[in-house]
Amino acid sequence: KQPVKLLVLPGDGIGPEVMREVGRIMAWLEKKRGLTFELTEDLVGGASLAEYGVPIRDEVIEKAWAADAVLFGSVGDPKWGHVSFDKRPEVAILKLRQELGLFANLRPAKVFDALVESSTLKPEVVRGLDIMIVRETVGGIYFGDPRGIETLPDGSKRGINTEVYTTSEIQRVARVAFDLARKRDNRVCSVEKCNVMESGLLWKEVVTDVHAREFPDVTLSHMLADNCAMQLVRNPRQFDVLVTGNLFGDILSDLASMLTGSLGMLPSATLGAEQADGRRPALYEPIHGSAPDIAGQGIANPIAQILSFAMLLRYSLNLQTEADMIEQAVSNVLASGLRTADIMAEGMARVGTSVMGEAIVREL
Amino acid sequence: KQPVKLLVLPGDGIGPEVMREVGRIMAWLEKKRGLTFELTEDLVGGASLAEYGVPIRDEVIEKAWAADAVLFGSVGDPKWGHVSFDKRPEVAILKLRQELGLFANLRPAKVFDALVESSTLKPEVVRGLDIMIVRETVGGIYFGDPRGIETLPDGSKRGINTEVYTTSEIQRVARVAFDLARKRDNRVCSVEKCNVMESGLLWKEVVTDVHAREFPDVTLSHMLADNCAMQLVRNPRQFDVLVTGNLFGDILSDLASMLTGSLGMLPSATLGAEQADGRRPALYEPIHGSAPDIAGQGIANPIAQILSFAMLLRYSLNLQTEADMIEQAVSNVLASGLRTADIMAEGMARVGTSVMGEAIVREL
Ligand SMILES: CC(C)[C@H](C(=O)O)[C@@H](O)C(=O)O
Ligand SMILES: CC(C)[C@H](C(=O)O)[C@@H](O)C(=O)O
Repeated sequence: KQPVKLLVLPGDGIGPEVMREVGRIMAWLEKKRGLTFELTEDLVGGASLAEYGVPIRDEVIEKAWAADAVLFGSVGDPKWGHVSFDKRPEVAILKLRQELGLFANLRPAKVFDALVESSTLKPEVVRGLDIMIVRETVGGIYFGDPRGIETLPDGSKRGINTEVYTTSEIQRVARVAFDLARKRDNRVCSVEKCNVMESGLLWKEVVTDVHAREFPDVTLSHMLADNCAMQLVRNPRQFDVLVTGNLFGDILSDLASMLTGSLGMLPSATLGAEQADGRRPALYEPIHGSAPDIAGQGIANPIAQILSFAMLLRYSLNLQTEADMIEQAVSNVLASGLRTADIMAEGMARVGTSVMGEAIVREL
Repeated sequence: KQPVKLLVLPGDGIGPEVMREVGRIMAWLEKKRGLTFELTEDLVGGASLAEYGVPIRDEVIEKAWAADAVLFGSVGDPKWGHVSFDKRPEVAILKLRQELGLFANLRPAKVFDALVESSTLKPEVVRGLDIMIVRETVGGIYFGDPRGIETLPDGSKRGINTEVYTTSEIQRVARVAFDLARKRDNRVCSVEKCNVMESGLLWKEVVTDVHAREFPDVTLSHMLADNCAMQLVRNPRQFDVLVTGNLFGDILSDLASMLTGSLGMLPSATLGAEQADGRRPALYEPIHGSAPDIAGQGIANPIAQILSFAMLLRYSLNLQTEADMIEQAVSNVLASGLRTADIMAEGMARVGTSVMGEAIVREL
C-alpha cells in the first residue's frame, strides 16, 4: 500500500497537545491495519506569526496541495490580539480554504448517549440528535468584493462587504449535501434569507434545480435563516442535512454544536473539488478553538481532534471500517465513564488528555 | 390631555384577532386613566395585496408619519407565496422601517416565571432570563446597493447583496443600546464578525468610540456573532443588552426568543430618530408571525400584541406606570393558571383569545 501523505498543522494553544493523541491512533493503524503515514508538520496561526511574521506561509499552502489531506489543530492566541486585519491568526484557515478551494465544510452535530446530560437543552429534546450541516466556505460575504473601510468627505467612515454567490458555487455545495443525505436520512433543508436577499433567492432557485435534475429521490425543504435558528432550539431533531452559505453556516453550525453541550467532542471536514488526477484537497479540524486558558496543562479533550482524524479516514481515504472503529472506540470509552474536565459529570472518572488518548487506543 | 393618535395595522392571519384584545385595554385606559385614543386603521401585507395589489400603500406610510405611533399586527399569508420579490407581504414591514427611518429594533427576550418549563432549555439555565437585543433595522445587507441577480455571459447567474454601515448609522443605534443599558443592568455586548468582515471591524470601532466618549459608566464587551449564538445557548443569562447589525440581529433575536419557549408572549418596538418637532416615529409589533394555520379560530395568544402596546405606552408616550400595570396584569393572569393553547401545560386552565384578553383587563 502507498503511504498516506498528511500535512499536520497543530497550530496554537491546545492544538499541539490534542494532536499528539492522534499520533497514538496513527501508530495503532500502522501496526494493526497495515497503513503507513508519511507526516509533514508545519506552523500556522500565532505559532507561525512568532516564527515567520505571517499567520501562514505560501510554502505551507504548497505542502497542503502535495498532501493527501491536511490535519489541522486550532489557531488563535491572545498574544496576537492586536495585529492588523491581514495578519490575524484566522487568516491561516481562511487562506487554506480559499487557496485549496475547500468549499464544503461538513459540521456534524451529534449527541453521544453518554453525554446527553451535558446539553443545556432538556435530554428529551436532544437525545439521539444527529445533524450534518454543510456550509459553503469559499464564497459569500467572507470573500466578496468590494470590501473595506473608506473615509467619506466629512471624515466619517463606511464599512463595506459584499455577499456574492454564483450558480456553480451553489450547485457544487448543494451536490455535496444531497450526496451526504443519501447516506443518512435522505433529507436536505436549504437555508437562506430569500425574503430579503437576492443572493438567497438565487441560492434557493439553484438548490431547487439541482434537486429536481440530479437528486429527486432526496426530500428537499427550504427555511429562512432566522427561523432555522429558532427551529434548532425548538426541535433540532427535525433536521437531517442542512445546507447553507458561508455566513449563515458559520452561525448556525456553531449554534448546532452547542446543542450537544460538548464542543470538545465535535470534528469537522472541509472538502474541495476533485482534481484532474482524481485527488481531492481536504482539511480536517476540531470545531473547538485553541483554548489558550488551558493550553499546556494536559487537561484538554483530544476527542474532537481524534474524530476529525476519523473523518479524514472516511472522506479522504475511504477507510470506512477504520473510521467506524475509531468512532465506536470513542463511544465505548465514554460509556465506560472516562471524562476529560470539559465533559466531567458526577460519578465519572476524570482523566487528562493523554490518558483519554491511551484509553481510546486500548479500546481499539 | 391631547388624544393619542395611533395607526393600527392588524395585517394578516391572527393579526386582527389579537389586535382586538388590545382594544379592550385601550377602553380600560380611557375609562380609568383618563387617556383618549384616536385610531386610524388600515391594511398591510396580504390583506393590502388583496384589496390594492400592493403590500403597503404610500398613503399608509403618510398616515404612519401623522400618528404618534404605529401598532402593527403581523403580515404573511400562504395565498401570496408566489408573488414577485417586490410584492411579497414582508415589503410592508421593510418599507415602514425604511421610510420612517425606524433604525432601532428592541427585542426583549424574557422568561416569565410561570412559563419557565415551556423552554426547551433546562429551567436552571433560563429561569429569570431577561435580555434586550437592540438590532439595527434600516442598514446593513437588507438595504445595501448593489443588489440583485445578474445573468453572466455563459447563462449562469450571480446573486449579489451588499452590507454597508456608516459611522453615523452605527453611532445612533449604539446610543439606543447604551441608554437602555443604563435603565437595566448597565452592560452592553456588541456583536459582529470583525474577524472576517470590515463592516464588522468598523462596527466594533464606532461602538467602542461612542462608549468611551458618551457612556464610560456602562460596561461594554464585544463578541463574534458565531460565538454569540453559542453563548445564547450555553448561558443566556450572561447578557444584559446586546447590540448588533440588521442580519445578525434578525437571527440572534429569533434565537433568543426561542430560549423563552413562548413566542406568543414576546413584543417588540422599532424606534426612529427624534424629529425637529420632538416627535419620534415608532412601530410596535409582536415577534410572532401571522400563524395562518390557527387564524380565525379564536385560540391565538393575544399577550405579545398586548405587551407590544405596553411598550408603545412606555417608549412613545412615556407612560411608565400604565406600561408597568399592564405587564404586571399579564404576569398575574399567568400566575393564576390561565393559558392559551400555545403555552398550555398540565394542570392549567386553557382559554381562548378573548377570555385571555378579558382576564387581563379584569386584573387591571
Ligand atoms: C476562524 C474564523 C475565520 C472561522 C469563520 O468565521 O469561518 C471560524 O469561526 C469557523 O467557523 O471556522
Ligand atoms: C419579515 C422579515 C423581512 C423580517 C426580517 O427579516 O427582518 C422578520 O424576520 C423580522 O425579524 O422582523
